[in-house]
Amino acid sequence: MGKKAKTAIVPTREDNYAEWYQQVIKLADLAENSDVRGCMIIKPWGYAIWENVQKHLDKMFKDTGHKNAYFPIFIPKSFFEKEAEHVEGFAKECAVVTHSRLEPDGKGGLKVAGELAEPYIVRPTSETIIGASFARWINSYRDLPLLINQWANVVRWELRTRLFLRTAEFLWQEGHTAHATREEAWEETTKMLDVYADFSENYLAIPVFKGEKSEKERFPGAVATFCIEAMMQDKKALQAGTTHFLGQNFAEASGIKFQNKEGEQEFAWTTSWGVSTRLIGALIMAHSDDNGMVIPPRVAPAHVAIIPIIKNEEEEEIIMEYVRNLKDELKDQVYDGRNIEVELDTRDMTFSERSWDWIKHGIPIRCELGLRDIENDSIYFGRRDKEPRDKQSMNRTEFVASIGATLDDMQKNIYQKALDFTNENTIEIDDKNEFYKFFTPKNPNKPKIHGGFAKSHWCGSGECEEKIKGDLKVTIRCIPADTVEDGKCISCGEDSKKRVLFAKSY
Amino acid sequence: MGKKAKTAIVPTREDNYAEWYQQVIKLADLAENSDVRGCMIIKPWGYAIWENVQKHLDKMFKDTGHKNAYFPIFIPKSFFEKEAEHVEGFAKECAVVTHSRLEPDGKGGLKVAGELAEPYIVRPTSETIIGASFARWINSYRDLPLLINQWANVVRWELRTRLFLRTAEFLWQEGHTAHATREEAWEETTKMLDVYADFSENYLAIPVFKGEKSEKERFPGAVATFCIEAMMQDKKALQAGTTHFLGQNFAEASGIKFQNKEGEQEFAWTTSWGVSTRLIGALIMAHSDDNGMVIPPRVAPAHVAIIPIIKNEEEEEIIMEYVRNLKDELKDQVYDGRNIEVELDTRDMTFSERSWDWIKHGIPIRCELGLRDIENDSIYFGRRDKEPRDKQSMNRTEFVASIGATLDDMQKNIYQKALDFTNENTIEIDDKNEFYKFFTPKNPNKPKIHGGFAKSHWCGSGECEEKIKGDLKVTIRCIPADTVEDGKCISCGEDSKKRVLFAKSY
Repeated sequence: MGKKAKTAIVPTREDNYAEWYQQVIKLADLAENSDVRGCMIIKPWGYAIWENVQKHLDKMFKDTGHKNAYFPIFIPKSFFEKEAEHVEGFAKECAVVTHSRLEPDGKGGLKVAGELAEPYIVRPTSETIIGASFARWINSYRDLPLLINQWANVVRWELRTRLFLRTAEFLWQEGHTAHATREEAWEETTKMLDVYADFSENYLAIPVFKGEKSEKERFPGAVATFCIEAMMQDKKALQAGTTHFLGQNFAEASGIKFQNKEGEQEFAWTTSWGVSTRLIGALIMAHSDDNGMVIPPRVAPAHVAIIPIIKNEEEEEIIMEYVRNLKDELKDQVYDGRNIEVELDTRDMTFSERSWDWIKHGIPIRCELGLRDIENDSIYFGRRDKEPRDKQSMNRTEFVASIGATLDDMQKNIYQKALDFTNENTIEIDDKNEFYKFFTPKNPNKPKIHGGFAKSHWCGSGECEEKIKGDLKVTIRCIPADTVEDGKCISCGEDSKKRVLFAKSY
Repeated sequence: MGKKAKTAIVPTREDNYAEWYQQVIKLADLAENSDVRGCMIIKPWGYAIWENVQKHLDKMFKDTGHKNAYFPIFIPKSFFEKEAEHVEGFAKECAVVTHSRLEPDGKGGLKVAGELAEPYIVRPTSETIIGASFARWINSYRDLPLLINQWANVVRWELRTRLFLRTAEFLWQEGHTAHATREEAWEETTKMLDVYADFSENYLAIPVFKGEKSEKERFPGAVATFCIEAMMQDKKALQAGTTHFLGQNFAEASGIKFQNKEGEQEFAWTTSWGVSTRLIGALIMAHSDDNGMVIPPRVAPAHVAIIPIIKNEEEEEIIMEYVRNLKDELKDQVYDGRNIEVELDTRDMTFSERSWDWIKHGIPIRCELGLRDIENDSIYFGRRDKEPRDKQSMNRTEFVASIGATLDDMQKNIYQKALDFTNENTIEIDDKNEFYKFFTPKNPNKPKIHGGFAKSHWCGSGECEEKIKGDLKVTIRCIPADTVEDGKCISCGEDSKKRVLFAKSY
């Protein structure tokens, strides 16, 4: 390591990206591991981001005609067994409830008792249990489309877990819809993918690629799976949301039938789609830097931290009155339909410690105010999208009046930075050697740093897909819908009709 | 049964209260039983009420300084065993996860596999798992108070379940706080009881009695439990929310210690408090009538149903244009900080069927509009707090401009009606015979209808409490904080210092 500026996060992204990620989470108080294997605790600052994600997405779902409902957390084993591919995909890692009480074990502890006649699975996803309801609720074409969403916790007993990215329990939303025709279900699948892309780009400030998954990467039981894929700062891809066109597979498994206009019985066409607390992992890896968390203002738990700098008791009253008034003035301002949220930080720490703590937490704006600033009616502040030492002064009235515009500028800057990074590291490759070189680390000591995303031709065969995965740990992230172009497969050289997106991934 | 008007709900409240309750839920599409024993499905109309409950309560929690977080759904058995009374209270009915996968059983089905080293309990409540986090998060008096809330699902393997009132899985919020002193924790316990009472009266329009629980009715492991109790229309009590002063019991069990200002280690003082989807059961039983659901406007999923009455194709265009404009005008109005939500009902059913369907769903206002109304620019509408056939006409401009005032009037009327009913059926009783007569059904064919709530003296002994419970199935609902008055125990005749609230209960 050469000489460089001291950073708040050690190690830096360049030195050890995986450990940097853990440290950002720790120092921003976002989440922590619990005593329950693979389950995380989402701390208030992290949960507040999730609440903002929920609030915005929920409005988008409702604006597109969906209604929320709630279904049981448990799925009877027999339901789970109904769709063969589905059970195959989820049976290997699930939490199974087998008993209904604890009894004294005679040694001062407790033992399990009350064995259930049929075990229950803690839902890893709810297609089968919601399908059973849909079968009851739907009788006629008049009952369609049925557009339902659920906010819930789900459990998948993952072996290797990482905070937000892969945890045994996670929070998510799962949309489940039923339609009278194939076309309508297909349209819903692509419409919700657009909603996810819109949300990711305009709220999370994360640019995404949209497209279909290859057959190997499909949701178990789906006819087609679509996804949005985003580039993280280590140039790996993260799947940030998926939508599934389920055809009539789950309708047949659950008996979701309706009488059509001609009086005949038909199976419905269904879809499902979801995003999870994984989005917070994406947020961290897309924007944060070597000083900690960077949060786009539209999903930030709070917008402004005010840090009064009080040197002695005489100053205290005048400074505290000023900052309380400033806080009230800011709270009357509105950004993105929400009143400005302000943290007034009077903790018993030096102003520098407090300022760095807010930098690590990623609050968009922090104001450091001492007596001289107040006498000048001037606000000395730093923006989280700039360097920590890049601060500026502004007249109070102007600062308050322009706070919404400042936040909006930050939201756009953060997006633009991520977009530039993604574009810089995404290239079209038509030569096999170049492709292999692109995905081979330049520095053997840093095996995880490689080229980025490659848009290359693929013949469509599972063999070529497997070959590339085996050679490079590179997978097809998605097959974009809108490009049709003749070319030669990057692996076998056979004819190809379109470029697909290749990358290493989370 | 004598002659009476036909009602939308059969049976009526008087004929069979328990069955009436089920029918109201069914015909209002609030919820239904699932294929998972004791677990309910909350349908969109019911879930929208819960979302409104969440929105308002969440704001009240945040306004009182609490932050949301999320903790694991699973509790290791060893955690659960830490507090003796607590485990005693919950071990008899809990969902136990013992395995982590399913494997082919060789007969075409699946069998459980992957036994866990330690079983996990699906949380029935989270004191122990949250306590483990608090122990890590709290080091110094500077970390206190710690004020956390969680919105979550919990599971208690109840034998006898009833939609919303008692289900194996239910949705709730659980507040968990830690304080440096006994006084602060006690103040939090009573403050949150006040928040619950405020919410119940001002949003759910349900009057409540506040007070402490007797020792027998305390939360397992608590030093003191407080509750709000509401009278249902069968004059039984429903506990609608509880707050617990946990003393240092859970702090000792979980090791929640802090260094005080003097540099000494002390155990923290903790509280917990919760309300659940049971509140929707309370809402149904407090306000609904023999025509179905009645929902106070502040928590109603939608405010206005517009039912166009179209007699022939020629009318259709003019009527539909008018109702769409009316919908837009109404949506621009605001009531209780929320834009008016309107359902435009063009279903292929007679206008009478549609109108009755909305009555059963409890929408506050329904407008029935035919060509003649439109030609007069006049809105013909019914209010759900009045009789179904009691409708009125109003000029459109006036109707739109006064919609907020109309809803506000309804909110107050619904509360006043429930308050009058509660007051009429709550009396002070000082004579033992009178007390026994009060709680003995007047009509032996309707054993559930009895006197109501009795405010009577109690000496404080568990024996008297048990005697009354054994004789009459009547329990002490709560011990109000504010009455001190000399008297004689209604059971044993010994000295008593205060009246307590006796009732049959859910």
